Amino acid sequence: RINGERLWESLMEMAKIGPGVAGGNNRQTLTDADKEGRELFARWCEEAGLTLGVDEMGTMFARREGEDPSLDPVYVGSHLDTQPTGGKYDGVLGVLGGLELVRTLNDLGIKTRRPIVVTNWTNEEGTRFAPAMLASGVFAGMHAQDWAYDRLDAEGKRFGDELERIGWKGPEKVGERRIHAMFELHIEQGPILEAEGKDIGVVTHGQGLWWLEVTLTGKDAHTGSTPMNMRVNAGLGMARITEAVHQIAMAHQPNAVGAVGQANVYPNSRNVIPGKAVFTIDIRSPELDKLTSMREQIETQAGKIAEDLGLGLNVEPTGHFDPVTFDENCVKAVRDAAERLGYSHRDLVSGAGHDACWINRVAPTAMVMCPCVDGLSHNEAEDISKEWATAGADVLFHAVVETAEI
Amino acid sequence: RINGERLWESLMEMAKIGPGVAGGNNRQTLTDADKEGRELFARWCEEAGLTLGVDEMGTMFARREGEDPSLDPVYVGSHLDTQPTGGKYDGVLGVLGGLELVRTLNDLGIKTRRPIVVTNWTNEEGTRFAPAMLASGVFAGMHAQDWAYDRLDAEGKRFGDELERIGWKGPEKVGERRIHAMFELHIEQGPILEAEGKDIGVVTHGQGLWWLEVTLTGKDAHTGSTPMNMRVNAGLGMARITEAVHQIAMAHQPNAVGAVGQANVYPNSRNVIPGKAVFTIDIRSPELDKLTSMREQIETQAGKIAEDLGLGLNVEPTGHFDPVTFDENCVKAVRDAAERLGYSHRDLVSGAGHDACWINRVAPTAMVMCPCVDGLSHNEAEDISKEWATAGADVLFHAVVETAEI
Ligand SMILES: NC(=O)NCCC(=O)O
Ligand SMILES: NC(=O)NCCC(=O)O
Repeated sequence: RINGERLWESLMEMAKIGPGVAGGNNRQTLTDADKEGRELFARWCEEAGLTLGVDEMGTMFARREGEDPSLDPVYVGSHLDTQPTGGKYDGVLGVLGGLELVRTLNDLGIKTRRPIVVTNWTNEEGTRFAPAMLASGVFAGMHAQDWAYDRLDAEGKRFGDELERIGWKGPEKVGERRIHAMFELHIEQGPILEAEGKDIGVVTHGQGLWWLEVTLTGKDAHTGSTPMNMRVNAGLGMARITEAVHQIAMAHQPNAVGAVGQANVYPNSRNVIPGKAVFTIDIRSPELDKLTSMREQIETQAGKIAEDLGLGLNVEPTGHFDPVTFDENCVKAVRDAAERLGYSHRDLVSGAGHDACWINRVAPTAMVMCPCVDGLSHNEAEDISKEWATAGADVLFHAVVETAEI
Repeated sequence: RINGERLWESLMEMAKIGPGVAGGNNRQTLTDADKEGRELFARWCEEAGLTLGVDEMGTMFARREGEDPSLDPVYVGSHLDTQPTGGKYDGVLGVLGGLELVRTLNDLGIKTRRPIVVTNWTNEEGTRFAPAMLASGVFAGMHAQDWAYDRLDAEGKRFGDELERIGWKGPEKVGERRIHAMFELHIEQGPILEAEGKDIGVVTHGQGLWWLEVTLTGKDAHTGSTPMNMRVNAGLGMARITEAVHQIAMAHQPNAVGAVGQANVYPNSRNVIPGKAVFTIDIRSPELDKLTSMREQIETQAGKIAEDLGLGLNVEPTGHFDPVTFDENCVKAVRDAAERLGYSHRDLVSGAGHDACWINRVAPTAMVMCPCVDGLSHNEAEDISKEWATAGADVLFHAVVETAEI
């Protein structure tokens, strides 16, 4: 069994870096806070006797040597970056859960046959630089590295420049590591486990996703003196498309979600009819045909709405992955571990995207989930109990060690 | 006749201060650019032999002495502040038109019986600090001065502090000046004059207005893993209220307008369901009962929408004026001037709010309007011709001089 107290202390220690405004965290990727979080994690890895490698996307790989160093390692990890108003556990639990299992192996003096590599993937959240899971996506060959470097944040800063600025662009070529298997522990970020009183979610599938960025172009004009029939109101277009996304997601129930997350109008002045609106759409489903159908319907309806209002329309896809089926053996290792340890469990579909979703394309992968209060995540009030974290890390420990062989 | 060339040159000179990004201006109130614009105007006033008074709201009053200094002066002016992406003429034409008529009187060596005071009212636009026409509103006793000082911009800066910062808080008590009459020249900011090929709008009425600031409170949550039925989506609420404002304005046609100008969601992240939305509503009508009915319907519908979605709702009025009927004699002076000078003209209702609307409550007031291209305003592409500006300033000249008596 892992040391739940120590895991919790490390979680609380990491949460001091990049504090939010309401008890959570703002440790967005490639910020100074991210740099500080990486430094703390690197120090802990060193203290645990791990050897750190960093690749050109800034992903951190902390290796515990196996009895047979020539064997492909078992990877375990997640991400340390957070949402702008994020929680203390989303991502962090998976990285520090990996660290905790290594510390436990050290305590027990156990050496696994295969090396174990604890990983912190760069820019999982995708808020500052879309898309999400950027570094694992490059690792899995889904994105070109140069394209990733050219991603811009809202202030126009380049991903590649910011990575250099914080000093975490490593020397290692991306995607060249051989992976025997990878396990990711994560909070559910949904309500099912808590509602059903289960300790552990055995993640069998992941939802597919489309992210679209929409720009509507109308005409700035005076709110008072412009007659209704002369308006080309981009804000009204944004409102109608926001409603359409909601309705289309509702029409694809169950197993579909959709919402507008970013919404901006220009010039954003009380007495100016917005001449431009830029906003983002996020739609997901574990069923590929539903996902495709939602995207088609959204594009069709957005086209009609723009035409009705005389607006220019541009829809740019900024993120995408197909629904994921995790590796049967890895999933079984997780399920068996939960069973063996006596934790209640059920199979789950991940509602969120995870680095494991990309890595699953190049190596056998599975995920462990633990409940979170009210299913709330991407919110500073995100919360879990020490017991849930301990159970999740225990299952992770057993699945990883079994796969790494003793 | 006034000197149209000189007026145009001054307009172009002023437009160099606080340039926009697309050929217009960003000279928002109490910014460094506003300070610079004020300095230029003060210099021109001095060169024209005027004596400058500044009141505690920063409004500038440049006086040309009359033959009988004991008589109440005739006021003429508008505002030099602009929208964040504003045009070169909105407001500026009225101030520099006033300056031009004084320069013309100087050229002609004419002294009027009554003094003439050219005025630059502080914060007409109301974008940086709501409400609009703030200084003229205090002057007319519609707002307490301390309340005006406490208005905050989007960064939380106080109006009173910013006024002191730019060094234009004057010594004069606000609203103590006696006004015989006031005239304001302004671009129409609407399409009617251009469409009908008229040179001059004789403004008989002004629309009434309500500005509402709406805050919706939901719950930030993950866009992927939060089931549709567990969402408390403040962005969706904003979208529905935006549509409702549009529909309610359409249902009150003719003589009614409505739109959402500012729209912000929080945390404004691609994969977070907005937990908060803050946006502004602007509704107007020249008919008081329509204005009241629109406001009532909007509040009712906003309440229903918020309730349906489980959102917290707060609606705060941030600006208001009733429909205005301008002074019969002043209006006649404008109409007669247009007639005498041979300009085509028609009566107009002002779609926008103006400082003249407030001053009309404490002194006889009227407005002159000239056309603007495509009725476009609050847009950097706002445009007028030199001939239109000249005609407007000519009519202003005659109406003012007649009222100031020779
Ligand atoms: N787990 C998580 O929140 N990942 C961010 C990408 C997503 O929005 O699903
Ligand atoms: N004229 C003008 O644009 N004034 C600003 C106040 C308003 O929105 O009507």
